[in-house]
Amino acid sequence: MGSEEVEGQLKKKINVGMIGLGTVGSGAFRILRDNAELIRHRVGVPIEIVKVAVRDTVRDRGLDIPRSLLTDNPSHVVDDPNVDIVVELIGGYEPAKGLQLRAIAHGKHVVTANKALLAVHGSEIRAAADRAGVMIGFEGSVGGGIPVIKALKEALAANRILSIYGIINGTSNYILTKMTDEERAFDDVLREAQSAGYAEADPTFDVGGIDTAHKLAILVNLAFGIPIELKNVFTEGITAISPLDIDFGKTLGFKVKLLAIAKLHHGKAEARVHPTMIPDEYPIAKVSGVYNAIQIIGDACQDVMLYGRGAGALPTGSAVVADIMDIARHILMEPSRKLPRSSDRELPVPELQPMDAINTIYYLRFMALDEPGVLSQISGILGRHRISIAQVIQRGRKQGGSVPLVIMTHMALERDIQKAMIEIKALSCVTEEPVLIRVEGEE
Amino acid sequence: MGSEEVEGQLKKKINVGMIGLGTVGSGAFRILRDNAELIRHRVGVPIEIVKVAVRDTVRDRGLDIPRSLLTDNPSHVVDDPNVDIVVELIGGYEPAKGLQLRAIAHGKHVVTANKALLAVHGSEIRAAADRAGVMIGFEGSVGGGIPVIKALKEALAANRILSIYGIINGTSNYILTKMTDEERAFDDVLREAQSAGYAEADPTFDVGGIDTAHKLAILVNLAFGIPIELKNVFTEGITAISPLDIDFGKTLGFKVKLLAIAKLHHGKAEARVHPTMIPDEYPIAKVSGVYNAIQIIGDACQDVMLYGRGAGALPTGSAVVADIMDIARHILMEPSRKLPRSSDRELPVPELQPMDAINTIYYLRFMALDEPGVLSQISGILGRHRISIAQVIQRGRKQGGSVPLVIMTHMALERDIQKAMIEIKALSCVTEEPVLIRVEGEE
Repeated sequence: MGSEEVEGQLKKKINVGMIGLGTVGSGAFRILRDNAELIRHRVGVPIEIVKVAVRDTVRDRGLDIPRSLLTDNPSHVVDDPNVDIVVELIGGYEPAKGLQLRAIAHGKHVVTANKALLAVHGSEIRAAADRAGVMIGFEGSVGGGIPVIKALKEALAANRILSIYGIINGTSNYILTKMTDEERAFDDVLREAQSAGYAEADPTFDVGGIDTAHKLAILVNLAFGIPIELKNVFTEGITAISPLDIDFGKTLGFKVKLLAIAKLHHGKAEARVHPTMIPDEYPIAKVSGVYNAIQIIGDACQDVMLYGRGAGALPTGSAVVADIMDIARHILMEPSRKLPRSSDRELPVPELQPMDAINTIYYLRFMALDEPGVLSQISGILGRHRISIAQVIQRGRKQGGSVPLVIMTHMALERDIQKAMIEIKALSCVTEEPVLIRVEGEE
Repeated sequence: MGSEEVEGQLKKKINVGMIGLGTVGSGAFRILRDNAELIRHRVGVPIEIVKVAVRDTVRDRGLDIPRSLLTDNPSHVVDDPNVDIVVELIGGYEPAKGLQLRAIAHGKHVVTANKALLAVHGSEIRAAADRAGVMIGFEGSVGGGIPVIKALKEALAANRILSIYGIINGTSNYILTKMTDEERAFDDVLREAQSAGYAEADPTFDVGGIDTAHKLAILVNLAFGIPIELKNVFTEGITAISPLDIDFGKTLGFKVKLLAIAKLHHGKAEARVHPTMIPDEYPIAKVSGVYNAIQIIGDACQDVMLYGRGAGALPTGSAVVADIMDIARHILMEPSRKLPRSSDRELPVPELQPMDAINTIYYLRFMALDEPGVLSQISGILGRHRISIAQVIQRGRKQGGSVPLVIMTHMALERDIQKAMIEIKALSCVTEEPVLIRVEGEE
């Protein structure tokens, strides 16, 4: 159970074992080293890195790590009786999951930023930690340096959380911001983002909304106590967003953002990720570039927004080290390591709504032949599916050829919209695949 | 030491005694009552209000409080052996301070939103709490429902805090927002704010910057470990802000906000409150109306901004109940109530800079006779005081009479600026008291 601890006595230092020294690992390492004095004073005892597992123990990472700390075998970290806290920062499902569970079985606390693992196996890992009486810190898994996990677990704990809106993928937000500000196409901006290092060579995870869905699953679990399965989170990325729709959005007073949305409504929960039009005056509409922001609405706090750097070595490292410090403070307070209950598992949990039961506002754009009767055909189909129209924009009248027809609906049911879209797509006057972007905002 | 606690055994419930049922008190009461089930599940045991001290025990507050809980004697709360946590929400220096100290002496934890008391006597109260081994929660004292205290104490604990920029007085921000959006004068908007309930009958505390200074003192203490005295916080309110300067600010790309500023620079600290011009594109410039926001820059997290409702029964009540829940979780974990060290008192603390040693950018507006040589006289004085000019705007040329001359400086020393202003004021061509607004932003 960790170092020179004597039953009932306070420890003189807290020993950390790290697995992985990639971007976030290096950041956490630097912070623990460079702010060691500050951290010692704030925690009460030093926090010492006693072992670091890396794939390549010879490579120079510019971190000046004593050779004796390094191992290429992560088991040496999770099995080391001296290690109090295991910091897993290799990411992915395996071996990360096995290593975390083994650390937990050894009575060690775990800190991780592994969103994919937590989104898919979070319930299992947290249950194992509860049984073992150890803590799992995962502030670094969502929002980089933004303390959203602590907000949901502690700072807003008195609230029934009503909704969460998150811009939690920096790559997508960077691309959408550039597309908006510079009126450029997705592919063009993506290529630039890739060469600037803001997008991966294979950007699917980010621009496809999968990374956002992982993070949303973690937030929903905390906010509503639902262990949701990722496959139940509706996920649509930004690859189909065109400058034309961003421009129509501008005309209508909206920004297009890739939003993670969670809502609780009449005891039913929603969790979805998709490009969303947000009214310009909403604070979250003003979140540009690689920044992340999470708006949380609670029944008492009302609307709170947390904003900051959603990625990067030092910001995410800041979150990882905050978790380490929190756990260290708990270890120092509590030799028998009893834990406060912090989950809502015993509460009746809301049911997750399927996507087709969602009600929202829709921005629809059709490319249609410029001939009489088009609007009446389309609006007729919408009407038959109980979808009422709030606003219509027709642009670029010309003889023959296609012109855009933009329709902003009132609140409508996703199921109805999907049926209507199938019928409209089949109209002979509709020349291209219609565009549908969901809209947040008051009616 | 509180209710039926048996040494070494976990408590079955946590007992709260409240002092004060004003706006925030009523909010906290409602949350504890309406979300009792949620709170019980998140904490592990029920949190029960066992005593409430109010001035008038007969008045109906619409809270449906059992008569047996009420007392008009706050001593009955702080002396009650059943009370674990005393929640002081009467505000002001006395009797609040005496009551808090007595609760602490009885080994009770204290939760308060009393910013004036903490700003002036915070060090004394926190020292007493440390000696007694009890906790003081004061999340409600700054930023209403925004968890800024927890951010500084815990979430960003791995960071050396470099600067804090806060819009932390809703009344002032409401007035400045209205003045900006509607191009109206201060007095006019103040009167409207008063009738809308956004400003007090005597608004001095808010518009004079005193409330902001109180809150800044609390933040600086947490961020830098300096127990600053309020009289050392330079404090200037918004009463002298004119629509003309807001308009020139607009022209130059700035918003005028009442800002609480704390900075650490080469081991020296700054703490000041004054109307500040902030570049339009800064997120904090977009904080409108009664909203509050605090931007915190740390060496690891970089820039984080927390945004939300800075006042009101439920938002501030949310913060108060979060403190109660945190303390309850600690009590449940730790029967002997040992505390983690959470202050930097043992660290070398930075020295607080006097105002005249501050370096910043200045917006200066002079009303001067429209005659030859005015700009050369004024710029000559600035130059002799080592103040260099970044930008000049001259508007409204007319024969005779006064015209505004606006100068944006480069970085300059407050001491130099003050000396130059005295000389410029004495010029015969300067017809009115010059206006000086400090500017935040990159050069």
